[in-house]
Amino acid sequence: MAKKIKDPGLGYISNENVQSFISPNGSSNVLHLNRSRNFDDLYTYLLGLSWGVFLLLVSLGFILLNTFFALIYLWIGIEELTIPSGYWWENFLNAFNFSAQTITTVGYGAISPTGMLSGVVSSLEALAGLMSFSFITGLLYGRFSKPKPSLKFSKSLVVRDFEEERGLMFRLANKRTTIMIEPEIKVTLTITEKDKSGEFKRSFFQLDLERDKVTYLPTMWTIVHKIDKSSPLHKYSNKQLLKLKANIYILFQYHEESYAQKVYKMHSYAFNDLLVDTKFKSSVKFSKEGQMILDHDLLNQTEPVD
Amino acid sequence: MAKKIKDPGLGYISNENVQSFISPNGSSNVLHLNRSRNFDDLYTYLLGLSWGVFLLLVSLGFILLNTFFALIYLWIGIEELTIPSGYWWENFLNAFNFSAQTITTVGYGAISPTGMLSGVVSSLEALAGLMSFSFITGLLYGRFSKPKPSLKFSKSLVVRDFEEERGLMFRLANKRTTIMIEPEIKVTLTITEKDKSGEFKRSFFQLDLERDKVTYLPTMWTIVHKIDKSSPLHKYSNKQLLKLKANIYILFQYHEESYAQKVYKMHSYAFNDLLVDTKFKSSVKFSKEGQMILDHDLLNQTEPVD
Amino acid sequence: MAKKIKDPGLGYISNENVQSFISPNGSSNVLHLNRSRNFDDLYTYLLGLSWGVFLLLVSLGFILLNTFFALIYLWIGIEELTIPSGYWWENFLNAFNFSAQTITTVGYGAISPTGMLSGVVSSLEALAGLMSFSFITGLLYGRFSKPKPSLKFSKSLVVRDFEEERGLMFRLANKRTTIMIEPEIKVTLTITEKDKSGEFKRSFFQLDLERDKVTYLPTMWTIVHKIDKSSPLHKYSNKQLLKLKANIYILFQYHEESYAQKVYKMHSYAFNDLLVDTKFKSSVKFSKEGQMILDHDLLNQTEPVD
Amino acid sequence: MAKKIKDPGLGYISNENVQSFISPNGSSNVLHLNRSRNFDDLYTYLLGLSWGVFLLLVSLGFILLNTFFALIYLWIGIEELTIPSGYWWENFLNAFNFSAQTITTVGYGAISPTGMLSGVVSSLEALAGLMSFSFITGLLYGRFSKPKPSLKFSKSLVVRDFEEERGLMFRLANKRTTIMIEPEIKVTLTITEKDKSGEFKRSFFQLDLERDKVTYLPTMWTIVHKIDKSSPLHKYSNKQLLKLKANIYILFQYHEESYAQKVYKMHSYAFNDLLVDTKFKSSVKFSKEGQMILDHDLLNQTEPVD
Repeated sequence: MAKKIKDPGLGYISNENVQSFISPNGSSNVLHLNRSRNFDDLYTYLLGLSWGVFLLLVSLGFILLNTFFALIYLWIGIEELTIPSGYWWENFLNAFNFSAQTITTVGYGAISPTGMLSGVVSSLEALAGLMSFSFITGLLYGRFSKPKPSLKFSKSLVVRDFEEERGLMFRLANKRTTIMIEPEIKVTLTITEKDKSGEFKRSFFQLDLERDKVTYLPTMWTIVHKIDKSSPLHKYSNKQLLKLKANIYILFQYHEESYAQKVYKMHSYAFNDLLVDTKFKSSVKFSKEGQMILDHDLLNQTEPVD
Repeated sequence: MAKKIKDPGLGYISNENVQSFISPNGSSNVLHLNRSRNFDDLYTYLLGLSWGVFLLLVSLGFILLNTFFALIYLWIGIEELTIPSGYWWENFLNAFNFSAQTITTVGYGAISPTGMLSGVVSSLEALAGLMSFSFITGLLYGRFSKPKPSLKFSKSLVVRDFEEERGLMFRLANKRTTIMIEPEIKVTLTITEKDKSGEFKRSFFQLDLERDKVTYLPTMWTIVHKIDKSSPLHKYSNKQLLKLKANIYILFQYHEESYAQKVYKMHSYAFNDLLVDTKFKSSVKFSKEGQMILDHDLLNQTEPVD
Repeated sequence: MAKKIKDPGLGYISNENVQSFISPNGSSNVLHLNRSRNFDDLYTYLLGLSWGVFLLLVSLGFILLNTFFALIYLWIGIEELTIPSGYWWENFLNAFNFSAQTITTVGYGAISPTGMLSGVVSSLEALAGLMSFSFITGLLYGRFSKPKPSLKFSKSLVVRDFEEERGLMFRLANKRTTIMIEPEIKVTLTITEKDKSGEFKRSFFQLDLERDKVTYLPTMWTIVHKIDKSSPLHKYSNKQLLKLKANIYILFQYHEESYAQKVYKMHSYAFNDLLVDTKFKSSVKFSKEGQMILDHDLLNQTEPVD
Repeated sequence: MAKKIKDPGLGYISNENVQSFISPNGSSNVLHLNRSRNFDDLYTYLLGLSWGVFLLLVSLGFILLNTFFALIYLWIGIEELTIPSGYWWENFLNAFNFSAQTITTVGYGAISPTGMLSGVVSSLEALAGLMSFSFITGLLYGRFSKPKPSLKFSKSLVVRDFEEERGLMFRLANKRTTIMIEPEIKVTLTITEKDKSGEFKRSFFQLDLERDKVTYLPTMWTIVHKIDKSSPLHKYSNKQLLKLKANIYILFQYHEESYAQKVYKMHSYAFNDLLVDTKFKSSVKFSKEGQMILDHDLLNQTEPVD
């Protein structure tokens, strides 16, 4: 008796070569059209950038802002700064340096504003500088402090004989050295098949798991769905499974000690990546002193079932 | 059998032209009398301002504070700063620039305090400046990092034929590109009618929904209340519904990936905005490669039921 | 049938004149002996200070730190700063000003270090200054951003006739202009009485409430415990209630929009503050346009029951 | 009837001298092999350091960064700074001081860049300085604001006669002066024994507690597992208990007022630390005025059962 469930939020309508709505990294794989953006999107965008791109953007912004102010000081007239006038290029570099000394609030004073207008502009530039670094302070903190799950799912989804039946299995490991507290997992199976009218439709099943909740997770966890009579996969042979247009969607949550908060992680597997008659290598190890060992390299290691 | 519920927190007493207690933007629409304010209200006030007004306030504060300190330096005597005395207006501008260079901690030094009193005041001003920018740093971060739901409800609430009965429907879309995790919705109907004593009273009903919880919401969700025999709306014809003094109040919650936190969003519809015999245009689309598409422009598009 | 419950965390042993363990402001009223402190306690201590005391402490710290560094510069020798030596007092003030200009990173440069030692010390002072203001930035943000419930409980706890029985009532109002989302309340009654052995013992009862959970709370909420046969208070006459050594402890929680987080508030009432045959004045009001009104002054207004 | 439970996340396989996977301070005691690190690990690493080490690292970073920039200025040529050239060591110290004045944005100006290259490098250094202090601001705030549970478990786990049976007990006290809100505790017992095949296997039991949830915890809480017939420990005599390869793992959670958040704390006891026929000294005290007293020194005080 396959336990069909209602649409978990994806819609029944499907497509011949429907993709997973979850990208390999766990984020959304949906194309957005006509979406309007706002200022807060900028923040979440800057939060999501890689560190390299982020630092590049900051440096670029610094140079552009200084160039902008340098041009203003040149327009006001280099004689309003306490430096002798020279070639345009020299003046620009002096104005640029003055701007940089102002925006960072270093203000050596070797170059300083002597006129009224340059005085006002440099005050505003210092204000702009402080506001920018306030913003960057928030961004840096936001980038680091955002609670992030940190776990790795095994590359493979495997099917092997298991307790007189078959079992569908994958495993996951904590990438941090903390202990995951009260992790919970929810696995949804979607199968896309042509219905009588010839259209592709999705069916949804909540997969029963050997265990969907543990108290602690210090090392690795192998998730097992037993393909017994109650499983929607029972009617398919291993060969058929490999051809099935099916995906499993995983929603994993736990309390992450590093951020003292509950975090969520999504993941998906496609059935064309399935390995049959394969099992994961045992991950249980103890040191001589009896300490548990988590060998992260074992996560993806599989071997054929004899 | 209409499932009447107890007052969900609004009170039974009503009013002939009672307004929704939720504004169109999801915030409170209640008039507060004799409310005392405190310092923390200032923070939440500054957090709630639009970015334009916020930046205006910061600039204004900067100018006022500098003017205030400039006047103090003039009162101490311009001769305590290392600048030659001139017309009052020149002196004021010099003092203002010195103040701005102090409060931003630029401190070029072209103007600097030479007397004891100006030394002390400028030290205090620098301290005040640092404290202000500390505060602004927090405000900027607070404005950005406050977890905000981001979703749009359809403008219209519609009634159409649905599975041998009628259905009351509205829909919503994620305004971000993240996937909403475990969204839940609660819909309360309030009907205001005169009771026997001639007073306006409210009745409350929790509307049964086709689905009030999904696991993921990557695109759009149409919320359906089936107006079957158990619905409090069953006894009203479509014509009567349009005249009913009724509101529905929506409480929506989900885990927002952008902020790694659970967020809430309130919304309300009034029945005088109801559209009958109207349906929403289908929002399901796939790209050629099978990627799901969310076209945000479709949210509000309706068409008559044939 | 009084529903006695197990100790909710207070212990059965009591005392003749036992005080509430919750202070009037909702914080702990417990005397701690031999408690060890750590660095994090400093942070929570600074977070809990009033704004006046906090700003005083910052100013004091600023003055002390500058005095400390000024004395170091004097010890190094005023000739290592670019200012002519004078009386000790003048030198001290110059050193103090130099220190203030360094710690705030203003650095006008009119006074600057010329020797090696003063150069190193002033570098360290600037570092110390930046660290201090980093810390203050965090403190200011922490003070503002800590999620704080904001509600007021009525001064009085009243008993009045209610639906053929008596009712124990108090009420509460939101002090903010947001709508409280999904507020929940839990009311525990403790009665201290002498047991057979002559010792004071506490009994605990979870009071049944007319409603202990609402969906929204835009205005005021009157909490009602009906003193019917199942109530532990049923056996006491109003006169006896006034003499009872009893307290009620309230644990209130809701989702606070201002901080986008769930907050908790504790409160307690003692029975010697009880008012009998008294009722709260109605708090329900609408403006002409049908807008709900919350008049905060009404919270504490009671009137005798006719 | 011992209530055996499924593996709570540790795996059935055990080891002769298996250690607790929880360190005495409540953190993870697992050896990680082949773990890949990323940038966010740096943040959580810096968050976890002691204050002494943290401040040392900041100072060291400051010195190294300044040395690095000083060497660059020397390479550019000391003549690009407004200081007369001297011995290499003098030049280095001047360059170092200039660097420190730049990185902290003090910028006295007594030394300032006169050449193009030194101008650009010092601008970049000021930028680097501001970024570093932005980062440190976030780190300082992160270190303080991370919600931390603060409670102490009694050193001893004791077994004593209790209500016609025996009881397994330990106690805990709040280390803060706040009231713990809605604390909950979960106690898992693991027993490692040789199975028929001669391998060490773990069994898991969820221990029934006299009370596993209270509403408030202002003082101390003694956790009691009654060793009655349903207990997995019933079949062991006190002597046997002392030799049992057993651990109890504790997961404790509560709402912490200081951080306005739910926090978790793990702890474990090994049975070789067990004390039999021992009880905790009473911790209940009241002041003359009836105020509850929490004497933190009592937590670990035990006495023999008479």
